[in-house]
Amino acid sequence: MAVYTDINEIELADFLTAYDIGTLTSYKGIAEGVENTNYLLHTTAGVYFLTLYEKRVNRDDLPFFLGLKQHLAARGVRCPVPIAPKAGPLIGELAGRPAAIVSFLEGMWPRRPSAEQCRAVGEALARMHLAGADFTMTRPNALSIEGWRAIWDKAHPSADEVEPGLAAETDADLARVEADWPRDLPVGTIHADLFPDNVLFLGAEPGLIDFYFACTDFLAYDVAICLNAWCFERDHAFNLTKGAALLKGYTSVRPLSEAEAAALPTLAHGAALRFMLTRLYDWVNTPAGSLVVKKDPLEYLRKMRFHRQVASAAEYGLPR
Amino acid sequence: MAVYTDINEIELADFLTAYDIGTLTSYKGIAEGVENTNYLLHTTAGVYFLTLYEKRVNRDDLPFFLGLKQHLAARGVRCPVPIAPKAGPLIGELAGRPAAIVSFLEGMWPRRPSAEQCRAVGEALARMHLAGADFTMTRPNALSIEGWRAIWDKAHPSADEVEPGLAAETDADLARVEADWPRDLPVGTIHADLFPDNVLFLGAEPGLIDFYFACTDFLAYDVAICLNAWCFERDHAFNLTKGAALLKGYTSVRPLSEAEAAALPTLAHGAALRFMLTRLYDWVNTPAGSLVVKKDPLEYLRKMRFHRQVASAAEYGLPR
Repeated sequence: MAVYTDINEIELADFLTAYDIGTLTSYKGIAEGVENTNYLLHTTAGVYFLTLYEKRVNRDDLPFFLGLKQHLAARGVRCPVPIAPKAGPLIGELAGRPAAIVSFLEGMWPRRPSAEQCRAVGEALARMHLAGADFTMTRPNALSIEGWRAIWDKAHPSADEVEPGLAAETDADLARVEADWPRDLPVGTIHADLFPDNVLFLGAEPGLIDFYFACTDFLAYDVAICLNAWCFERDHAFNLTKGAALLKGYTSVRPLSEAEAAALPTLAHGAALRFMLTRLYDWVNTPAGSLVVKKDPLEYLRKMRFHRQVASAAEYGLPR
Repeated sequence: MAVYTDINEIELADFLTAYDIGTLTSYKGIAEGVENTNYLLHTTAGVYFLTLYEKRVNRDDLPFFLGLKQHLAARGVRCPVPIAPKAGPLIGELAGRPAAIVSFLEGMWPRRPSAEQCRAVGEALARMHLAGADFTMTRPNALSIEGWRAIWDKAHPSADEVEPGLAAETDADLARVEADWPRDLPVGTIHADLFPDNVLFLGAEPGLIDFYFACTDFLAYDVAICLNAWCFERDHAFNLTKGAALLKGYTSVRPLSEAEAAALPTLAHGAALRFMLTRLYDWVNTPAGSLVVKKDPLEYLRKMRFHRQVASAAEYGLPR
């Protein structure tokens, strides 16, 4: 939870004169979000979301993120729509930070997703993949398999302090995933961070938010991330009903190729490794007293162990 | 900034069925507020504010706080209005905490209050005092002069570590304020914490929020708190123009008696001491890494030093 940058009401009202969105009536800093500072704005014209991009976000990536939301929204994906100023670029500057306004997306993220919500998110992910097919901008995945070893090298020395044996397990898993990683699956624009807190349900209808890890990578890797994020219970057990529902929802819109299905265990194993690694890195590198709530890397170690023994996508619930 | 208690969308929707405020469409944890957890709710009927009362708030005080807001709002004071459920008490329970819903008050708090805003808040404070005249509930001021020595006894050992000489200065000021404290000024319901972040201006119109220090005490003490909170600049210099504006606004609605005017320097000195003491206590007792942002006690030491040399209310801008 974080509001890193306070803004005063005068500079904000000034900033908003560049937009055709009415007069500001209130703004509240939002506790959600760990990367950026977010304000919920009320104006005489409606409700908006203001993001100030903090240091962890590369300014050069902002046109990709905002362009992607524009592109997807124009194709019917329920997601925040960037609001263009009367003149000039989508990205302004406020309080010394890059700043952008998007429409406010109503909905609530599911704290304990149901199987039906897993199905719905699978379907929404596939629709996003199809809608992104003609999106012409690309962004390399900074946290792709090529980047994992560099993170691991930094986190390695502390791994066994966090959990005895973690270093050896991770060494073995990383070597295996690198060896097995697929080479020529369908590539497109992926969300890459579609956890439950990034999906706002308005009734049964999912909406997607927080595209700040979006990038160009294997589409099936996005499915693998969602299997990890949505289909495990709090006791870390994989829920086959939810896995089957998510995959059914996805494949009802975009069927997986045989190669994608065959690669799913490796992709899911790799996705678990990726989140374990970044969480481990943050765990040992986030100063005490930081505003950022650290997430437990061991949750993802348990998922790595599960994926390690999976032989085929059928074990995630994909129909044979 | 704080969201101490996360609530899930299912328990919240259940909770809201007791109210006639439409169907929930979103809820966002608000970063403002250090005592309680606050959510901004959107429903199909409008915008509301949900507060979960955390440990620092005494449950027995809640009927006073909510009753006061009801009372003031009914008399035209711009403040949040408690929303009654279809049946039962104003205070419900959610996620194991007492919980209440109030109307959402539009407006922005002034980061750098102008003299005109000081005048407006003085006027609003006086209107609140008049509107509270027939409020029948009372609440002792837990942070009145009788309580200061107990706080000081706990903070005393650390005082000189925070600022060399602070212990001796505070000892002397506390003795002097105790000796000079008035005995029979007009008493009523005071806000007791009317800092700029508790006043939301919609255009020129102030609205009052956060009544969780409200209590029964000298009305003029509330004026003294506002002089401290609104009329000093960032360099800690008293701004006579703002002081005069605040007092002009207040006395245009409720003139100060001669006794109140004569007591103002002691009341203002005491108010500065009270905020220095509670900030000092929090400064030395808040664990590192807490979500609460600690406020600097030395800001109020500088104000104590100013008030110490004030001889009459004219030095705050009160017309002779």
